[in-house]
Amino acid sequence: MQPAHVLSVGASDLGDTDLPGRDLFSAALAEAFADLPDPASVVDALYVGNQSERYENQIMYGTLAAEWAGLRNVPAERVEACAAAGALALKNAVRDVRAGVHDAVLACGIEKMTAGGTEGATNALSAAFERALEQRSGITAPSLYAMLARRYCHEFDADETDLARIAVKNHRNAAANPRAMFQREVDVDTVLDSDYVAPPLKLFDCAPVTDGAAAVLVANDEVADELGIDDRVTATGSSVTVNNLAVAERDLTYVEGADVAVTNAYDEAGIDPSDVDIAEVHDAFTICEALLAEAAGFAPQGHGVETVRDPSERSDGWTDVQINTSGGLKARGHPIGATGLLQAVEAHEQLTGRAGDRQVDGAETALLINEGGLADAATAAHVLTTQS
Amino acid sequence: MQPAHVLSVGASDLGDTDLPGRDLFSAALAEAFADLPDPASVVDALYVGNQSERYENQIMYGTLAAEWAGLRNVPAERVEACAAAGALALKNAVRDVRAGVHDAVLACGIEKMTAGGTEGATNALSAAFERALEQRSGITAPSLYAMLARRYCHEFDADETDLARIAVKNHRNAAANPRAMFQREVDVDTVLDSDYVAPPLKLFDCAPVTDGAAAVLVANDEVADELGIDDRVTATGSSVTVNNLAVAERDLTYVEGADVAVTNAYDEAGIDPSDVDIAEVHDAFTICEALLAEAAGFAPQGHGVETVRDPSERSDGWTDVQINTSGGLKARGHPIGATGLLQAVEAHEQLTGRAGDRQVDGAETALLINEGGLADAATAAHVLTTQS
Repeated sequence: MQPAHVLSVGASDLGDTDLPGRDLFSAALAEAFADLPDPASVVDALYVGNQSERYENQIMYGTLAAEWAGLRNVPAERVEACAAAGALALKNAVRDVRAGVHDAVLACGIEKMTAGGTEGATNALSAAFERALEQRSGITAPSLYAMLARRYCHEFDADETDLARIAVKNHRNAAANPRAMFQREVDVDTVLDSDYVAPPLKLFDCAPVTDGAAAVLVANDEVADELGIDDRVTATGSSVTVNNLAVAERDLTYVEGADVAVTNAYDEAGIDPSDVDIAEVHDAFTICEALLAEAAGFAPQGHGVETVRDPSERSDGWTDVQINTSGGLKARGHPIGATGLLQAVEAHEQLTGRAGDRQVDGAETALLINEGGLADAATAAHVLTTQS
Repeated sequence: MQPAHVLSVGASDLGDTDLPGRDLFSAALAEAFADLPDPASVVDALYVGNQSERYENQIMYGTLAAEWAGLRNVPAERVEACAAAGALALKNAVRDVRAGVHDAVLACGIEKMTAGGTEGATNALSAAFERALEQRSGITAPSLYAMLARRYCHEFDADETDLARIAVKNHRNAAANPRAMFQREVDVDTVLDSDYVAPPLKLFDCAPVTDGAAAVLVANDEVADELGIDDRVTATGSSVTVNNLAVAERDLTYVEGADVAVTNAYDEAGIDPSDVDIAEVHDAFTICEALLAEAAGFAPQGHGVETVRDPSERSDGWTDVQINTSGGLKARGHPIGATGLLQAVEAHEQLTGRAGDRQVDGAETALLINEGGLADAATAAHVLTTQS
């Protein structure tokens, strides 16, 4: 197995834009390819993460992204597991390079969520939940995650203020991220005073509806040499797992699938949770960050909400990882099919020392957790590192 | 690279059914697993081809198919390139087994097309075409393919009767296929007298709207031994390519992407067109079969319509391949995301001598061509063979 490197990354502006998906993708690609000599000539294949055909009445994103990138007669396909689609694209790229199937693969994500307004996005996202058991009762993403949050606060020493602090932290991080959709801080009262979407989750517990695209070039050493790229961020761990979709068929306070995916990724990379310097974890709702911090082994069960505390004030067992330095889905933005790749964009910037005001000193190893459906219905976990 | 074998196949009933996608999938899986000892225990990963979330307001088919198959904490994902989705799933399974990433992978396809009626299917399929250039003018699949058919008949010695004979042949084949949606013959007049959908294409030039699912188990020799399967149909060639989507940006009478994909698959398999005994080619419209027969090297350009002639009456250069012994998309049925795998089902039955009244004597090598979007916007080509 040969090493697969994240060599170059790009992202579009994130937010409520006037741009169609094609232009969002082109912006991401232009950034990813900006400093490279003729990168299109080295790309052997594409994977495109995209959630919903509803936003722009468009499928066939594999073909389209290839065409937009100026590539023809190469393999390309769309992959989808709702919000985990972006990291699926990354996983496929990493696997192909590791296995020697291809030398260089472009992993992309595109989502034009605002095309149908908030209601359109809510309806499109409802398709990610179980049709027979859940959709017919009118369930939505916030209402499902609210069940997890309520149970978590019931079982453990956690409350709405703890969850609010996760949003506050992520907004603070986003204020230092020029890519973020919301580059401004909020305080706990702002979160707590915002309207309930589905109790106990309030507006500021929920990631926004975001337009955006991302592009990540994954390649082997030979291509890195050819392109003259010395900053090689290596994907040393890469794992995807699926678990039950319906809330009725799952543990409400333990994300087994995420635990398995992260453990697989750590094992591949030969690391422990304490080796992780930064982590981008899927905070579509604040409760997700708490659950995933536990699945990642950063905190004991029931203590995931301590992501917001100073390391010195955390429980025994907490590592000193920095979580969602980008601002996370909450404040950087959450363009569904691109989100998993935006996590890789942040990790690449941090691990190559390009993260500006939010740079974590000495960051060498990153964990990415991207999820789709309810919680760990689909999980992709990646370990990226500059450690050889 | 280790050999990847198609070890077992299954399909649901095909047609206008009362069953939801879940039940269609379960029927396909039950057949694929019927004669195997505990096959679920050997499956390492799943790929699911599915075109549209509109039919059942459902995405996340990777997670769902895994759950329905009784699998948990394995990798699974949905892949999509419109009607090529099924063969994308097959390609991914073959690649994973060949590369040693997994020992056994389940390739599945599910489509519940009738949920929104013919109008719903037409609308859902419109998303496969170029949004900015084509959708806004109200274009549909038949109208785009009609342009190709009209140009073909203009440039070459072919007319509506030639196209009609392709439908007649495929209905005749389907009459001998207990899996087919239309198990009845039609004559040329029936085709020619049917209503125009988009001239020169008439109702009987078009594949139907079909509910259906298929499941194909792809595995290495070790798993074949473990399951006690001696009939090993080997995927010796497997290639996917994409080409331009918009009709304005393509050659109307030459499917370059299909040519490249088939050539790649032949090269991998080390064979020539004349080595192919049976071919399942994507006849979503009769014109497709003509174009793809040429791309496959069975006929000189402009002579693809001769699929309907007796081998002794064909042009020089024609091979004696039998095309669409299953009845093809036209008469076996065309459940979009499952179609590419239904082609593999037919090939497996033919190559293992289980094709009953339609058995081609001595069939040892099959070519499958599955397409998505307009013509070769996405093409997957596979060579399956019992020749070691």
